[in-house]
Amino acid sequence: MADKSSLQISMRGLQMPASPIRKLAPLAEAAENRGIKIYKLNIGQPDLPTPKKALDALKTIDRTTLEYSPSQGYRSLREKLVGYYERYQIKLSADDIIITSGGSEAVLFAFLSCLNPGDEIIVPEPAYANYMAFAVSAGAVIRTIATTIDEGFCLPKVEKFEELINERTKAILICNPNNPTGYLYTQKEMNQIRDLVKKHNLYLFSDEVYREFIYTGSPYISSMHLDGIQQNVVLIDSVSKRYSECGIRIGALITKNEAIRSTVMKFCQARLSPPLIGQIVAEASIDGTEAYSREMYEEYVERRKCLIDGINRIPGCYTPLPMGAFYTVAKLPVDDAEKFCAWCLTDFNYEGETVMMAPAAGFYTTPGLGKNEVRMAYVLCKEDLKRALFILSKALEQYNNGK
Amino acid sequence: MADKSSLQISMRGLQMPASPIRKLAPLAEAAENRGIKIYKLNIGQPDLPTPKKALDALKTIDRTTLEYSPSQGYRSLREKLVGYYERYQIKLSADDIIITSGGSEAVLFAFLSCLNPGDEIIVPEPAYANYMAFAVSAGAVIRTIATTIDEGFCLPKVEKFEELINERTKAILICNPNNPTGYLYTQKEMNQIRDLVKKHNLYLFSDEVYREFIYTGSPYISSMHLDGIQQNVVLIDSVSKRYSECGIRIGALITKNEAIRSTVMKFCQARLSPPLIGQIVAEASIDGTEAYSREMYEEYVERRKCLIDGINRIPGCYTPLPMGAFYTVAKLPVDDAEKFCAWCLTDFNYEGETVMMAPAAGFYTTPGLGKNEVRMAYVLCKEDLKRALFILSKALEQYNNGK
Repeated sequence: MADKSSLQISMRGLQMPASPIRKLAPLAEAAENRGIKIYKLNIGQPDLPTPKKALDALKTIDRTTLEYSPSQGYRSLREKLVGYYERYQIKLSADDIIITSGGSEAVLFAFLSCLNPGDEIIVPEPAYANYMAFAVSAGAVIRTIATTIDEGFCLPKVEKFEELINERTKAILICNPNNPTGYLYTQKEMNQIRDLVKKHNLYLFSDEVYREFIYTGSPYISSMHLDGIQQNVVLIDSVSKRYSECGIRIGALITKNEAIRSTVMKFCQARLSPPLIGQIVAEASIDGTEAYSREMYEEYVERRKCLIDGINRIPGCYTPLPMGAFYTVAKLPVDDAEKFCAWCLTDFNYEGETVMMAPAAGFYTTPGLGKNEVRMAYVLCKEDLKRALFILSKALEQYNNGK
Repeated sequence: MADKSSLQISMRGLQMPASPIRKLAPLAEAAENRGIKIYKLNIGQPDLPTPKKALDALKTIDRTTLEYSPSQGYRSLREKLVGYYERYQIKLSADDIIITSGGSEAVLFAFLSCLNPGDEIIVPEPAYANYMAFAVSAGAVIRTIATTIDEGFCLPKVEKFEELINERTKAILICNPNNPTGYLYTQKEMNQIRDLVKKHNLYLFSDEVYREFIYTGSPYISSMHLDGIQQNVVLIDSVSKRYSECGIRIGALITKNEAIRSTVMKFCQARLSPPLIGQIVAEASIDGTEAYSREMYEEYVERRKCLIDGINRIPGCYTPLPMGAFYTVAKLPVDDAEKFCAWCLTDFNYEGETVMMAPAAGFYTTPGLGKNEVRMAYVLCKEDLKRALFILSKALEQYNNGK
């Protein structure tokens, strides 16, 4: 007989991390209720408008029944995406592409399809915190290798990977360009990853949702460009960031590996279909939006310069120059960035304004790492970024004088 | 060192069932490519239009950035839903409601939050096939208790539940009104379920997405109406069927149990947010659509009569009268309904037309059960239903004469 104690939350539910990006949200809400204006550098929600062409597609939907779409997503969208990837020298057929509810679902389905409980995934840290959540969901284990702010978050030495690889190691996961560091892997680093994947016959989960946001002359090397590991690569993608349409929840899982695809499709069929309207919006975003993408790119180039210069001018602060995405990890002159970030929301304001940042510790799994670091997203306009940095400098002054 | 065999699909990926509703789809596509018209009774995709008010909401969206919504969904939608449930004497606050990507995600998150790998859920069968898929995703085990067409698919005896309950039993799952049988649990049956849940302190996952579709004078008894088990109940809901908007992917997980909600919220935060546009459409669907709901209801009353009468008039066929939802399970005069359903798509047509049904075996987990049964959805207009039944009778004649 089951006893009275059986009404319990699952182990995995207890293990699930709270989002480091969203966990300060209640403090922010309270501050806003006190009338404080908050510059939100904590979350990767671009402020830019969605392309007009995409918004127009919404207004001209002429369907009378908003029915299920195919579980793998509309062929017309997948075919448009084939053309999109061609621009990046990634050669695909529409059948290689499965549309998901955001990149999030693509990560979850990749883990569920490829990994058994107890299987290990090696991930350079700091890393996007939700990888951990999806690993917990699948019963898989994230093993991290630390990258450091002093080395600009470059790929750890191959030996560090070799040390961690054991019979339970099934995959390497990279995010390139990287969230939260903005790091862009070089050709040499990508070749090192390729060799590791090949040597140990691992899956390579490659989250490349920020490919549009690369600010150096360095080439973008996709995992899909790497020779000899086509069957190992699962590309995770999303239209969220590049068209500023995070809310439509359209992502993709892409692989040349037919066994993975047919397994992922079983998970897709179980959840019936990805969002119908989001697919229509996404499809309208792909072609004829070159001017939009160029303007967006130029805007981020300016914002990056503004934020990075500004951070490094504040005494005791340092951030390396991110080569991609729209995040940077910065070191602050505080012992505990989480306490400081909370304090900015609870005990501080400068002329009625404050800043919200994501404590970087939540992006590391190794205890103690990133304790004096924060992730900042440059998703605000330059004027707001400048003001936010000025307020940050005032907050640091007051925080450190008060000690 | 990992060996070459490490690039394998997960055990859970191998265990995932293929959808019994969608598995004949390739045969249907081939038939359509040969120019055959197919009456699709296999899938619960209503043909009715979405409410005009909801479609209009799409056209008047005045947002310029399609941004993330809150992880638990917009408060305005959750507050509208509070009013909706009040009509059914279900008293909730907006905080009890978490918006999900379809009812599917609600089932998955309920399982992930409440069940450990190896935990057992008792489900009367035949059952919605994807429960099995979500259980496999969570590593949980579905234990079924057979209901039978001869008893009209009523709730199995309490003793049958007691026989299955052991220390790994954590939950009972019901779908009411039922997919695939159309059965509606009586007050007495719901009280039996309540007593079992209370006695063994189990979770009660209650999928009630078809509450709008009840065709008898019998009252709709929600799990939320049952006394003394408020902390045990997790209600699964979706706007898909009641507003004919399956494609917007808006469902809900509802519970008074705060520990479950805060755990589910961690899974919600990991996937960031439910579809933004779908929430806008769903919100517009709730109020001012009474006339729509009444017309829809009357249409289904007629269709149900048409389908059930029609089936029972075909020699050798039998189906009980479903009291709710828009499905029925029918017995056909064939040995193997799956073979027959495939044959209808591959080898048969009557004047260039054929029918597609879902073999019921896929809704049972006990091998051999439902072998001569099919699930039919009455989601076509009456004329089409009549024609489909006529073609079915012709198919059965030819199939059985050919043997």
